[in-house]
Amino acid sequence: MRETTLRDVAELAGVSPRTVSNVVNGYARVTDGTREKVERAIAELGYRPNVLARNLATGKSGQIVVVVPYLDTPYFAELLQAIIPAARKVGYNVLIDQTDGDREHEGELIGRGSRRFLFDGMIISPLGLSQEDLTVRDPDLPLVVLGERTSDGTFDHVGIDDVAASTEAVTHLIQIGRRRIAAIGDQPYPTGEAAQLRTRGYRAAHANAGLPVDESLIIGTARFNRIDGATAMAALLDRADPPDAVFCYSDLVASGAIHTVIGRGLRVPEDIAIIGYDDIEDGRYSQPAISTIQPDKKAIAQLAMDRLILRIASTEPVPGVELRAAHKLIARQSTVG
Amino acid sequence: MRETTLRDVAELAGVSPRTVSNVVNGYARVTDGTREKVERAIAELGYRPNVLARNLATGKSGQIVVVVPYLDTPYFAELLQAIIPAARKVGYNVLIDQTDGDREHEGELIGRGSRRFLFDGMIISPLGLSQEDLTVRDPDLPLVVLGERTSDGTFDHVGIDDVAASTEAVTHLIQIGRRRIAAIGDQPYPTGEAAQLRTRGYRAAHANAGLPVDESLIIGTARFNRIDGATAMAALLDRADPPDAVFCYSDLVASGAIHTVIGRGLRVPEDIAIIGYDDIEDGRYSQPAISTIQPDKKAIAQLAMDRLILRIASTEPVPGVELRAAHKLIARQSTVG
Repeated sequence: MRETTLRDVAELAGVSPRTVSNVVNGYARVTDGTREKVERAIAELGYRPNVLARNLATGKSGQIVVVVPYLDTPYFAELLQAIIPAARKVGYNVLIDQTDGDREHEGELIGRGSRRFLFDGMIISPLGLSQEDLTVRDPDLPLVVLGERTSDGTFDHVGIDDVAASTEAVTHLIQIGRRRIAAIGDQPYPTGEAAQLRTRGYRAAHANAGLPVDESLIIGTARFNRIDGATAMAALLDRADPPDAVFCYSDLVASGAIHTVIGRGLRVPEDIAIIGYDDIEDGRYSQPAISTIQPDKKAIAQLAMDRLILRIASTEPVPGVELRAAHKLIARQSTVG
Repeated sequence: MRETTLRDVAELAGVSPRTVSNVVNGYARVTDGTREKVERAIAELGYRPNVLARNLATGKSGQIVVVVPYLDTPYFAELLQAIIPAARKVGYNVLIDQTDGDREHEGELIGRGSRRFLFDGMIISPLGLSQEDLTVRDPDLPLVVLGERTSDGTFDHVGIDDVAASTEAVTHLIQIGRRRIAAIGDQPYPTGEAAQLRTRGYRAAHANAGLPVDESLIIGTARFNRIDGATAMAALLDRADPPDAVFCYSDLVASGAIHTVIGRGLRVPEDIAIIGYDDIEDGRYSQPAISTIQPDKKAIAQLAMDRLILRIASTEPVPGVELRAAHKLIARQSTVG
């Protein structure tokens, strides 16, 4: 069976194809009577407007894309629970693209010749792309960047103050009397920005308290997952001089570390106090509940969406700005019993 | 500045616009010399092919969409970790749409006039849509359905045998000597299919063992989340005759239930044995580790992708089939100590 066309609808309604197009695209320049005639013809023929052709005409798809490295990282899954409703409230559908932190995949998404016509704007949390890579991008793509990069003046960046937050986390461990504090999650340049900011906070807290840093207690990991925390913790416990506290760069890392500590018959926090980062739901239900840094995810989502909508609506270039959401230290059983 | 057009590229390369289009769309009917000339002109002018127009011409976008109710449910996040690589291996990018289980949103996605031109096929795990709703859909959309519906002969359905799996879970609790077994997660018709199949398994295990079912031990919940498990468990413990075991309809529900039991100073499994469903990573790291039903997520992903690719490639209607992936009972500390 031949597909019903716009021309068929126009014929049945007794109007021009252009008028049908105006109705389909929701343009105002159509009288109510005409609109009714066209809509009746559309219903009668079961006409399905070609979305792609419509987008081509209007230049808008009504969709935005949110690009994250890993969907099985609860932090991103929870952040999306704040972004999706914020987008729907202003009439946008959200599609999500997982990059696995692959630099090439991330680069394609922000680059010229990207799939940008399929969406009106992008919120990206880059992992593979370095700060420099971000400058090589389609300048016409409305873009908001999350995480630990900084704005280059052409896109907006939304994050929390990671150095301050990490300093607070480690200061908390010092305040409860711990002195041999390990850090799990460090990562090398150029793409480990998140990790490096946390390591800076770890050092700052020691400096503030006049404590020396034992470099051998800063443990690198490939990712911020449970298995990374479990493995690094095992190595720390195998030492002759294990730590009495650990700052983990994510709650998942903390969950893995706790698993190892308890598996060895030791107690959290009595033998080893543990603090995480992200405040994922899992940490609140964990035994013991995990102390953490809570980023204001709702604020991050709303700030990102507000800037993206502004960029999509603007016909002029919008200068890029830095936006900072709040964070809070949450002390739970894994540090204060 | 005026946007570079296909016509500009044609002029510079000294070929027809049609030839440029053939190169951009990867058609074979172009000599290597011509292709090279066109590609040089594209690079020189910084020409960006209009993806939307290209899709319109070829009828393909190279993207598929995976539609899930909740991205913060680890089961779906983990399933996507199997689907995305399977799709990339055959050259498809995956976009994800979260529906919140909203019937209208799900209906729009599979319906006529949907956004289907933005993707070549869809894998959907419906929640709001009933089995009947699934029949009212765009017949031209290549569609594979996951979860607890059944194929109506026009789409494929991939799932595990939920009744058999649930029967095994409850039989395991009976075999370790438990007799007052509660079930947490029941949900009413018409959309609670997942829950109803698990309740059927709960009843079957009792019938197989010649045990009566205490209807008051089947607890309904709004969703399969930690908070649902925590609340339902509290109600069970407040009874004069609390259960000695609980079959939870997801690992998240089990995690919430364990949180309540331990919070009351009781022991898992000594006082109350608990088994979940889904085998999410969280359950393996939980204290105690959670016994569960492990669906073969890789097999589900591969079966779904194979059928979707077949449907996208076929010019004839493909009869819908039922595909069943394997599952396995995993006994951990929460039932066997």
